[in-house]
Amino acid sequence: NLLDAVQSFFQPKYLDGRRVLITAGPTFEAIDTVRGLTNRSSGKMGLAIAQAALAAGAQVTLVCGPICLPFPAVHKLIRIVSTEEMFAAVKDEVSSSDIFISVAAVADYRPAEQHSFKLKKTAADITLTLIPNPDILQYVASLSNPPFCVGFAAETDAVQQYAEEKRKRKKLPLIVANNAVEAIGTNESALILLDDDGSHYLPRADKNAQARLVMAHIAGLYDKHKG
Amino acid sequence: NLLDAVQSFFQPKYLDGRRVLITAGPTFEAIDTVRGLTNRSSGKMGLAIAQAALAAGAQVTLVCGPICLPFPAVHKLIRIVSTEEMFAAVKDEVSSSDIFISVAAVADYRPAEQHSFKLKKTAADITLTLIPNPDILQYVASLSNPPFCVGFAAETDAVQQYAEEKRKRKKLPLIVANNAVEAIGTNESALILLDDDGSHYLPRADKNAQARLVMAHIAGLYDKHKG
Repeated sequence: NLLDAVQSFFQPKYLDGRRVLITAGPTFEAIDTVRGLTNRSSGKMGLAIAQAALAAGAQVTLVCGPICLPFPAVHKLIRIVSTEEMFAAVKDEVSSSDIFISVAAVADYRPAEQHSFKLKKTAADITLTLIPNPDILQYVASLSNPPFCVGFAAETDAVQQYAEEKRKRKKLPLIVANNAVEAIGTNESALILLDDDGSHYLPRADKNAQARLVMAHIAGLYDKHKG
Repeated sequence: NLLDAVQSFFQPKYLDGRRVLITAGPTFEAIDTVRGLTNRSSGKMGLAIAQAALAAGAQVTLVCGPICLPFPAVHKLIRIVSTEEMFAAVKDEVSSSDIFISVAAVADYRPAEQHSFKLKKTAADITLTLIPNPDILQYVASLSNPPFCVGFAAETDAVQQYAEEKRKRKKLPLIVANNAVEAIGTNESALILLDDDGSHYLPRADKNAQARLVMAHIAGLYDKHKG
């Protein structure tokens, strides 16, 4: 809206010309023609991060799962459904990115089998075998010449501990942690930014305001990292 | 919009005062705090049916799963997430309904276990046991004094055969069949209406136009049924 546009105009352009690749939304893993596995991500935080990156002057590529929100005017929008499609899009884009921000709630697992017809209902229980999906963020962070990588971690308990473990394991300079129960689908959530200097707490606020603070923090770390 | 409002105004009020209970959208079955099973229903057809029932003068109660479309101004809107929640809402409303139209793409199965925390990802495959959900339409159609029941069947092959089998098995006066691959998420689909007189083919058209024809057919059968 107009207020956002005016605010964006007056933001410092601390990412001027930087190429930022962002994933957002859930992914959907088909079981058959109609059924599938997904998660409750609305895509709000990912879109807010994309908007904040635009406002900071970045050139933004957004890879986004099935959501129903209006998209910010990013430079390149790639809409995908499954994790494997998101992975393929990220592989295509990552070599031309300075910063990679993984906000998407990627489905960790997908059905071992996918059926190209609608399975018939029976009275019996059925057993679904789920296999791990590729870890897109881990792949990108492990590249020989990776972009500056930022992860998001939605946890329901021991939020800071699990998020810091994830950051160390994936060798990320920064991870943004939140409480999934509080955050999902809402416009507000408290965030904890975890980096090599420790933890930084951002109190509960509008996701757009949060996203601008997160982007400013990313830009600061990125400059230090490059410099 | 205005055109819809004007068209609705000039529709014959062949369901004046009839109480119509409609289910719409997908249901979502939680696996844990964030993950779940769902299906690709957009809710478009259910909302079009609700709008057509309103235009025909009915008093409409809509029980609807998680969708992201604007709702028509029904008399009572009950938003649910899981199939069990939809079932509870239908049980509450059915005794005060003359007509029950089951458009929802109800999840046939739900996870045997639901976790109140976010499961951690591991490198191993996982096995999910799914148990059959209650069949809401079958329950309603089997009541001793059921409302006039209409089912929807989205099939991917042998559409007419599977739909007619479903109609016979659930003892429904009418079932509306379509091809799931063609119909899901789109604004247009061809429909086949199956009743005791045989099959009636409605060619591909806008879902709102289709819904008005379906409601007119329902009203005709309902009058014959009551009369």
